[in-house]
Formats: sequence, structure tokens, C-alpha cells
Amino acid sequence: MNFNNLDTISAYKKLLSLAPEGKNFDFRRVLDGKRVESCKTMMAGGLQYSWAAKPVNDGVLELFQALADETELIAKYNMILNGETMNPGENRKVLHHLLRGQSGNPVMHDGKDLGKFYAGELARFSAFADKVHRGELKGSTGKQFTTVVQIGIGGSDLGPRAMYLALENWAEKEGCKKLGAIFISNVDPDDGAAVISEVNLPETLFILVSKSGTTQETLANELFVKAKLQKAGLDASRHIAAVTSETSPLANNPQYLDSFYIDDFIGGRYSSTSAVGGVVLSLAFGKETFAAFLKGAHEADMLALESDVRKNAALLDALIGVWERNVLLYPSTAVLPYSQALSRFPAHLQQLDMESNGKRVNRRGEAVAYATGPVVFGEPGTNGQHSFYQLLHQGTDIIPLQFIGFTESQRDDDVEVDGSSSETKLKANLIAQIAAFAKGQDDANKNKEFPGGRPSSLIFGKKLTPEALGSLLAHFENKVMFQGLIWNLNSFDQEGVQLGKILTKKVLSGTSGDSALEAYGKLLEI
Amino acid sequence: MNFNNLDTISAYKKLLSLAPEGKNFDFRRVLDGKRVESCKTMMAGGLQYSWAAKPVNDGVLELFQALADETELIAKYNMILNGETMNPGENRKVLHHLLRGQSGNPVMHDGKDLGKFYAGELARFSAFADKVHRGELKGSTGKQFTTVVQIGIGGSDLGPRAMYLALENWAEKEGCKKLGAIFISNVDPDDGAAVISEVNLPETLFILVSKSGTTQETLANELFVKAKLQKAGLDASRHIAAVTSETSPLANNPQYLDSFYIDDFIGGRYSSTSAVGGVVLSLAFGKETFAAFLKGAHEADMLALESDVRKNAALLDALIGVWERNVLLYPSTAVLPYSQALSRFPAHLQQLDMESNGKRVNRRGEAVAYATGPVVFGEPGTNGQHSFYQLLHQGTDIIPLQFIGFTESQRDDDVEVDGSSSETKLKANLIAQIAAFAKGQDDANKNKEFPGGRPSSLIFGKKLTPEALGSLLAHFENKVMFQGLIWNLNSFDQEGVQLGKILTKKVLSGTSGDSALEAYGKLLEI
Repeated sequence: MNFNNLDTISAYKKLLSLAPEGKNFDFRRVLDGKRVESCKTMMAGGLQYSWAAKPVNDGVLELFQALADETELIAKYNMILNGETMNPGENRKVLHHLLRGQSGNPVMHDGKDLGKFYAGELARFSAFADKVHRGELKGSTGKQFTTVVQIGIGGSDLGPRAMYLALENWAEKEGCKKLGAIFISNVDPDDGAAVISEVNLPETLFILVSKSGTTQETLANELFVKAKLQKAGLDASRHIAAVTSETSPLANNPQYLDSFYIDDFIGGRYSSTSAVGGVVLSLAFGKETFAAFLKGAHEADMLALESDVRKNAALLDALIGVWERNVLLYPSTAVLPYSQALSRFPAHLQQLDMESNGKRVNRRGEAVAYATGPVVFGEPGTNGQHSFYQLLHQGTDIIPLQFIGFTESQRDDDVEVDGSSSETKLKANLIAQIAAFAKGQDDANKNKEFPGGRPSSLIFGKKLTPEALGSLLAHFENKVMFQGLIWNLNSFDQEGVQLGKILTKKVLSGTSGDSALEAYGKLLEI
Repeated sequence: MNFNNLDTISAYKKLLSLAPEGKNFDFRRVLDGKRVESCKTMMAGGLQYSWAAKPVNDGVLELFQALADETELIAKYNMILNGETMNPGENRKVLHHLLRGQSGNPVMHDGKDLGKFYAGELARFSAFADKVHRGELKGSTGKQFTTVVQIGIGGSDLGPRAMYLALENWAEKEGCKKLGAIFISNVDPDDGAAVISEVNLPETLFILVSKSGTTQETLANELFVKAKLQKAGLDASRHIAAVTSETSPLANNPQYLDSFYIDDFIGGRYSSTSAVGGVVLSLAFGKETFAAFLKGAHEADMLALESDVRKNAALLDALIGVWERNVLLYPSTAVLPYSQALSRFPAHLQQLDMESNGKRVNRRGEAVAYATGPVVFGEPGTNGQHSFYQLLHQGTDIIPLQFIGFTESQRDDDVEVDGSSSETKLKANLIAQIAAFAKGQDDANKNKEFPGGRPSSLIFGKKLTPEALGSLLAHFENKVMFQGLIWNLNSFDQEGVQLGKILTKKVLSGTSGDSALEAYGKLLEI
């Protein structure tokens, strides 16, 4: 297996020579009904991926295929599935796929079958959720739990929170919503205090999530919550369960109702399908809902093994992103779900993408000479239309777009105004935007002119169900993985967060020995 | 007054020639305690602006001053304050400053004194809020209102929502929280349905906000809400008040409890200090809180008249942004408030900035040959540290940063862990990040190396109070205004949203005559 930098790959050099053609790709002429019907491929969970409005023609697609083949992307993905380590000098496997099902060989580590380990934890927290739902496990004053509060930050917060919001309306409609969920993440004490003031403590179950068991923000919030429980006369050990690794100080600790485990091979931003997301989602919506979510993700993982770039949405999406970032030189990209349920999905993708591929050295620790991960941002449509779309349409930079949309709403509670339902208006807006961005419009008044040529792709499906959500999540996880492999990065570490942690400790202990830190400390009265 | 493009300004040309110096500005050497103490200036509401960690030295500051003087920025700002129209062939004044107080001459329009008009509306909705709080105005079944739901989108949603969240904890602590507020914005029917399922309708007052009275999403949500009120046996006309313009179909309409007015001179994204923000904020927190918020904003508006760039935070912030965008060529910028209360403030700034200055033609409708508004994104710290900061520290692009922090929390409900409170940890993290971004750190292992040289500014104050929030909001409004003037743009229109509206109507009526739109319609089953 060769792990070479992107700028040594011959298919990439050929793509670079196509840059002018890519930049001048005439959207107005090319984007017609035939192209929309032909430029799409199936995804898992009933979704489809459309690249009709991307600056990609057959010649570019052929070079994408050559690039994927030359860099052995599918073989590298298989290495990951089989639990082989990817980075020199590192013993770390990358196993979030294994959480959703066995896709490769059994993965053994220190004599332990990790597929069985993850499945065992899934079974344990499913049973735990069942016991809470059946009222067999109650709070310390005998009241049934009605609310679950997740305490975690970063990957222990954004993914699970985005997934919870994505399914809350669906579960209400399906009648499977069991507990309401709230999240505490920030070390800002106002975050925890606001949540505590909202909940009824005797009926609240807290899930404390920290893989290492040493996350500063999460431990501070744990003690904050414990103080509140004690003040309310409640036995904290009967109101808190932990999600952590087996070697952490939170493991097997009598201070908690129970503990559920992940390990070092599940990265925080890839942990929504582990106990990190699974405990809170199973408590909120039932184990069957979480199982359906895993099923959608597993199906997506299997489809991502396809070597034909035209039939592998995650791979194609990754290649288009590299084309736009490195050849067309667009430095950022926006995620625009036309679904209020996906209100925090862009924030999750922002973490997933920017933390995985915001790197300047390759797998061997050598600086790379090309751009890597872009800035990712987004808000739901139609809200964004009334906000930052002005710049997307008429700004001086081009921002590639990722639209997401569904045929049906989740709650099926709608109103007809001026001959159309709100759901139909939502979809009409989505379609209109794709066309407006791509085709633009001439006008003698240049202030009313739309240059067009603003590329977008569309992921669409019938309804945002647990299966569809699992598929959507795994699509982006796999897209980011493929891009990291193309850029020859280690997408699964985050050394960039370390320096801040070290300096924070120095500030707190007053030992920084740095006059700037001390002066800032004076400004903020530390 | 000359309105010339930026690339004709001699001070700008001199700044361009300094580009290499700016890019090689040695943060590690320069950022010391002395610089931190000297590179700051007062803002309104007790805040301060620090540019110590920006790539700006005395030579650059002198050219900033020359640029501000040459482009007559303060004189142009005075034109705006005096109600003079800024754009050729347009009769539109820009009057959001006048909402907070008289800063220039009386502004007359069609024989009406607009300062008095805005003050009169402020008095009317303050009295309206009082009546609700005293229980003199109740729902149609005689129940006192406990919840206010704002129905609006874009500027009628993001700003008021961000301000509400910013003050909710403060008001809880101060004992002046009167009603809880919720917001419906998206035309996605799941948005409205979820809100309706949460509230107790007999105790709910809806505020319908649309300046034109024709906003598609808002009118659809109005009818959705009305149907729910009727189904619950309530008299809708006694549960809805309107905020609109006097010429809109919503004005003086017996279908509403009352109507409060703005006019065409208050842009949506600049309307948080008008009735658009004022009605909901006065209902939620009392008229005194809203008055304090206006006071902070007015004070900021007055400070922005200062011609010395070192003493005018909004002007200096604007100039630094242009330096970073046009000379140092950084295409995006992140807003990072270390305050959970400001969780949606970055989304508001995203709209404010990108919709105002995401333009490619100047005031005369001529294409400009330089970059204008950047991409703006952000999330609160410390959350962002566990998410996208990896890319900010070690990615291949440099993203300028805007930090915001406070000495005290809003709720003053905290916990001591490992010798420090959560609030102190929050501040220590903020300080550590500024230093880490600026100074970086060498390491033989390049994966653990931090290049540094990542610029940031800091806005800080004692506590996020209504005055401080007003100051913060007006700071960014004025910054964006100054940048628009420097780029010679019309920052107060948004023609870029029109094409999507037109195409949406064509899709809904089935008259697009465009095979791509029809094919997308088939995919989404319209």
C-alpha cells in the first residue's frame, strides 16, 4: 500500500491541468432535466446523492476514478474496516464502522474481539434503557425518570445533540418518544445553571460522557450537577450513569448507576453510533430507534466499499470536495439542510470535517504543500435564505454548497396557504435555490445580476427517519475519511487542541511565566 | 463627498505594499504584556476592544488613519445619522441608529419627524408590555400570558432570538424575567408544529413580524398558528400582535390585538433595536431592560463618531477586517464568544455581515475588482475548542478570530473544582487560546507543532448586561457599516435574495419552463 502525498499523484496533476475548464464550466447551458436525472446515485436508508449542479463532467469523473484507483482508497478503507493501524508508529485502530456491524474480518486487540465488545455494550445499554422505560430503574426518591441530561463536550455533545434534535419530531409523531433530552457542555457555569433550573431533579437521569474521564469541562459540570442533586436531597449515585473507557477513573465506579464503555479506537467526533450517542438516544427514543439508526449507518458503510466513483456517494462527494478545494481553490463550503430537524447537523459536520482534516502535516508528520480541510458552516433553509445567502449568490467568492432535503415532513402537521402546503413551499425554495445558484440571471442593472456558476450537490430522500439519519451521518463520516486519505492525513487525531489545554493549566496555576498571558489575566480579572 | 472604490484610495495602495510585512508580523516576539496593556480602547457599556494579537503595528495604524480620513468615513457616518440617502437613485435612508437616540439632526420624511415616530412606537410597545405584565391584557379565555412566540424569519428572527438568549440568564438572576419566549421561523412545518406542541395556547401571545407583510414563510406560519388557536377554541385576534410597516396588509388590522410599526429605513438585520426586537424583549424582560439595551447601543453609536482610529473600536475593527481580507487575503473569520448566553450571537453576526457586505458591485452598480465581505461563522467557547479549533490552530489556512469574554457569569451560580471556579476556567481557556493562536509552539514532531501567527481580537467586559449587549450589537453594526463604506458598497440592500423568490413562485405555480427545475421537482415529488 502506498501512502503518498496528493501532489505526487498523476491523476491529480491531470486534474490541475483541467482547472480552467472546471472554472469555466457553463452551468447555465449544462444544467437541464436530463443532467438532473442522470447525475445521481443511491445512498443507504433510501437517500440519493445528486451532483447535477457540480462542475463535474465525464472527463473529470474519469480522472476522479483514476485518482481513487491510484491512491487505493477502497483498499485503505478495507484496512480500516479490518482494524489495521494506518499511521506510522501508532497503535490506534479506527473502529467506528464496527459499532454499526461487522464489515471486515473480526478485529482482535489484546485477545479481545472488539466487534463483540461493542455489540455487548450496545446490548447492555439497550437493556438499561428498557429498565428505565419500564420503571424498573427509578430516581432515588422513587420517581420515574422523565428527562435525560447528557453532560459532555465536543464529540460527546455535538453529534448526540444533533441526532437527538433530528429525531425528536419523528419520535413524537411515531409515538416512541420516551424521555426528553437536554445537554450541558460548556464550562461556562451559566450553561449548567440554566439546564438545572429547567429540569425536575427527582425525575432526571444524567449521563456523564468522557472517554478519558479527565475532560476538564465535563468534570466541572459533573460536580456542579452533583452539588445540585445533593442540595435537593437526592442520592447522586442513583441519578448518574457514565459513558467512558474501561481504563478511566469513571469506570466501575460506585458513584454511578452504571457505566457503558467505548475505547480509544472510537474518536469523539465519530462516536454518535457508540454508547456516547447510544445511551441518550436509546433512553429518549427506545432501543429500536437506535438500532434503526445503526442499520442506516451500516448500510452506508457497505455502499462506501463500491469502487466505481459514480456509484459511491461518499467517495464521489470526497473527490468533488478535493476538486473544489485544491483545483478550483474554494476555501469554504456550506451545509444547507432544508429540514428544521437538522438545525444542529451543520455544527456537527463542522466538527467532524474541520477537526478531522484541518491538518498541515501528513501521516508521517511532514508538512504538505497543498490545502487540506475547508471551513464548513451552515444553517437550515429556508432560514439561511433570509440571512447569509446574499453573499453566496452575489459575494466576490464562490462557496460550494451541500443541500439536503426530504419529500415529507416528520410530523405531517401542515397548512395549505395560497394553494400549497408549507412542506411544498420548503421543497420549492430548495429547488429554486439550486437553480438560482447554478444558472444565475443576467440583468442590465448589475446590482440585480446573478453571476451563477455556484456549485451545489443535493442529498434527498422521502423522510428523515432513523435509517435515513444513520445513512446521512455515515455518508459524511466516510466522505471525510476518504478526503483525509486523499490528502494523506491522519484524520483521526487532534493534536491541535493540546497547546490550549497546556496553557490553560498554566494560567490557572499562575505559572505561565508569560507576560502576555498575565496581562490578559489582569484584563479579565483572573 | 467622494464615493470611490477602495482600489483607487492611495492609503490602500500603501497598505498593499506592506502586505509582506503584515504576513510576516512576528507574533511570538511582539505579543507581550506591554502590548496587551497598550493596544486596547474603550467601548460603550463598559466593554473594551483589544487588538494586541492582531498583525497591526504603528505604521499600519497610521495608514488605517489615512485610509479612514481619505475615504471620509466619519463624515459619511454623519450623513447616515442625519438621514441623508447614500445610494444613487435611491430614496432610502438608513435609520437604525435613530431607534436608540438622536445622534444627528432631526430626520424628516414626508413631513414626519422619524425620531419622534420611532420613540412613539417604543412608548406604545413599552405600554403594551406593561399591560401584559400587569394582567390587564389577557388571552381570550381570561388567562394571563406566560409565553410569547415570535413568528418571523431572517432579521425578524435571528437578532431578536440571539438577544433573547443573551439576556435570559441575566434576567432570571435579576428577577426581571416576565415571559418565556420561543421563536418560529422556518417554513418547514415541523418547526411550527414542534413549538405549538410545547406551549399552552390559552397563555400564549404571538408576535407576527414582517415589515412588508408579505413574507411567504411568516404568513404560512401565521395561518398555521391561527388554525391551532381556532382548533383550541381561542379567539386568534386576541392572541396575536403584529410588527410591520404602516403600509403593509398587517397594519391596522382588526385581526390583531395591536400593531407596532417600523418603516423602510430599518433594515431587517438592523432591526433588533426596533419594535422587531423590542416587542418580544420588552414582553420577556420588561421595558426597563430593553431601555438599557438601547442605551448601550446609543452610547456605542456616539463613540463610533470618533475620528481617531485608535479610539474608535468599530472603525478600527472594520479597518483590521479590510486589512485581513484584502491585503493579507484571509477569506473567512470566526466569532468565538466565551459565554454560553451568546450561543446564537455568531449566527446573527453571520447574517449582519454576510448579507450587508456579500456584494460584488459598488454603490453605482459597477463590479468591484477586490474581495468584499468574508465568510463569518462561530460557536461559543469552550465548545468550539473541542470542535473546529483543530483547523484554526493547525489547518493550512489562516482564519482571523474575534474573541468575546466577560469577567463574571450572569447567574453567579458556580462550583469550585481543582482550586478554580468554572467561570475562572472559562476565562483561563480564553486567554490560553489567544496566546496559543498568536504564539504557537515549536516541536520536533511536526504533528505537535503550532505555527502560530493566527490573529485575534478580544472584546471584553465585566458582565453581559443589557447595556453591554446593546454596545456589542451596535459595535458590529457600525463595524459592518464602516467596512461597507470602505468597500464602497450599498450595505443596506439585499438584491441577492430576489432570484430565489422568483424561481420559488415559478416552481409552485408549475410555470418555470425549465427542465432542470422540473426534474428536481420530480425528485422531490412536487
